[in-house]
Amino acid sequence: MENHIINLTRGVPPAEVFPIQEIQACLETALARDGGQILTYNFVPGYAPLRQIVAERMGVPLEQIFTGNGSLEIVNFLSAIFLGSGDTAFTESPTYDRANTLFKRTGANIVGIPMEADGVDLNALEDALKKQTPKLFYTITDFHNPLGTVTSLEKRQQVARWAEEYEFLVIEDSPYRLLRYQGQDLPTLYSFAPERVVHLCSVSKLLAPGLRVGWAMGSPQIIGKLIKWGIDSTLASPSPTQAIVYEYMRQGLFDINIERLKAVYAPRLVALAASIDQHMPSVIYPKPEGGFFIGLTLPAGNDMDTLMKNAAAVGLKITDGRAFFTNPADGERFLRIPFCTLPPDEIETAVQRLAGIIHH
Amino acid sequence: MENHIINLTRGVPPAEVFPIQEIQACLETALARDGGQILTYNFVPGYAPLRQIVAERMGVPLEQIFTGNGSLEIVNFLSAIFLGSGDTAFTESPTYDRANTLFKRTGANIVGIPMEADGVDLNALEDALKKQTPKLFYTITDFHNPLGTVTSLEKRQQVARWAEEYEFLVIEDSPYRLLRYQGQDLPTLYSFAPERVVHLCSVSKLLAPGLRVGWAMGSPQIIGKLIKWGIDSTLASPSPTQAIVYEYMRQGLFDINIERLKAVYAPRLVALAASIDQHMPSVIYPKPEGGFFIGLTLPAGNDMDTLMKNAAAVGLKITDGRAFFTNPADGERFLRIPFCTLPPDEIETAVQRLAGIIHH
Repeated sequence: MENHIINLTRGVPPAEVFPIQEIQACLETALARDGGQILTYNFVPGYAPLRQIVAERMGVPLEQIFTGNGSLEIVNFLSAIFLGSGDTAFTESPTYDRANTLFKRTGANIVGIPMEADGVDLNALEDALKKQTPKLFYTITDFHNPLGTVTSLEKRQQVARWAEEYEFLVIEDSPYRLLRYQGQDLPTLYSFAPERVVHLCSVSKLLAPGLRVGWAMGSPQIIGKLIKWGIDSTLASPSPTQAIVYEYMRQGLFDINIERLKAVYAPRLVALAASIDQHMPSVIYPKPEGGFFIGLTLPAGNDMDTLMKNAAAVGLKITDGRAFFTNPADGERFLRIPFCTLPPDEIETAVQRLAGIIHH
Repeated sequence: MENHIINLTRGVPPAEVFPIQEIQACLETALARDGGQILTYNFVPGYAPLRQIVAERMGVPLEQIFTGNGSLEIVNFLSAIFLGSGDTAFTESPTYDRANTLFKRTGANIVGIPMEADGVDLNALEDALKKQTPKLFYTITDFHNPLGTVTSLEKRQQVARWAEEYEFLVIEDSPYRLLRYQGQDLPTLYSFAPERVVHLCSVSKLLAPGLRVGWAMGSPQIIGKLIKWGIDSTLASPSPTQAIVYEYMRQGLFDINIERLKAVYAPRLVALAASIDQHMPSVIYPKPEGGFFIGLTLPAGNDMDTLMKNAAAVGLKITDGRAFFTNPADGERFLRIPFCTLPPDEIETAVQRLAGIIHH
């Protein structure tokens, strides 16, 4: 009997969590109130009421918020503004592969700093800083992609101190921060060095990725540079989607939706961890308290090419773990398992299949 | 008695032409049919049905269409892909100032080719080509911004021949092409050199600029480069706005709306030309057959600083004509007058005021 294929590659919200009716109603309300403004040019950063309500949510003045087409566009703008050919960017290794792609595209030199279960390896970061000062350091402090880890308070503080001492920009990419299923929030890295850190968030994981609405919080100087770069790049922003998000926040639905999402995702994280512990006890992983992913390191004796071939044979699609590492060989035994998309019974089946093909 | 201020700076559709109800209804229909897909990640170039329907409209295969966030984002992508520091870009002079900004940002050298009443000055273009081959030539063939001119058939054919002979890219930016109020369409420049020309259009002037939906038609090779650059830059596209445009086209409303727009704009062009001919007979301008603008060259003895000061004094906001020219001094006596935004009586009042402050 052939297995149906289970997809472990996609870190995306499942379609059933999209509040389609609410989104539709929000545009209707917004257009009825302010249609002429929403449909004309709204110069980057776009529809002003959205920027205002995000500023209120984040507790900063308007001039410290930039709203863009998803947070990746903002990473793109920051890398274009701050990185030139011959400059150096530090990233975590592993990290979100699409950010790395953007940094590389500028011609910059990328240095990957190894990760530990509580965030970046400070000794390695210090050694790297003694060798060269980067223009920027890209970090995912909350429920890391692909590791699922949270950067400790102490490490946030130390990175902030170094950012000030060595004068580099920190991009704190934080799309999963509000999806905490247990434990307590830590202060943002931004809060320890607000002049040096740009904190990014988006609605992709909190409402719907198709809206492409993200935001940056940073110093007025950095936000001013983003606005200039953005106006030059695209002139104006897609305002109906921004108006939907504004209206969704204004009506209080955004926070309600986050609670709904937690109720969906929390049991999936529990299910995935339980399945791994039961079927693959030799596998090492830091236990996440939120987000979308568990990052597994398989025992010695496993390798990615064999794993991908065998996964396909048992009906599993997996992501090549090497893609997340600055040095691909470091990801030879690394697997990112998203728990967001699959219901618990599918998760159990997937882990059983995986357990059958790895060397324990 | 103080005059109310009349704004002659903005080449934007007036809010009253936005079909708010239809746009709202289109999103409702699209979300009801395909909400799960519209709200998730749709990798650049975005929502597939939009790309398909645009391809059908343009009469080319799917792989020759790229849909982006307004056509300016596409100009940005093309300039980033094709221009590097030290490269040369040719533009028309005058031209759309925001395109020039993008080309300059790459570090490229910009050469402005003078314009005539029937398009670019071919002698000047030939001289420039003999000196150096550009990486690209940016041209607005239909109802030029800021001139209002149309490039003649002969000039389109010659530019196409040179693009093939000298192997440079032509960006044919054509947001006004479908807004023709009299006369006959000419074939696109694209049609004479489809391997060398990228033809751009958008819904900004044809439906609503706030949607930020534009498209490029070009060879599969160039469109492939745009897709790669776009995915790396922003990953996915804002799909609800793309779905609105798809649904608007699918229901046949797009062409109906263009006819409605022509009925609004055509009398405004007639009114503006009549007012100019009556009150400022010494002013030279090519008479447009479509688009948004008339481009005036004032008689000798006028200069921009004096003009702007005097305009403010009589309650007119005007755009500094020098901003459109590669060599700003060439625009010392140039005024772009948009007729799209103002009703005929306002146009008459504006021209009367202008006539009062220029040297005839």
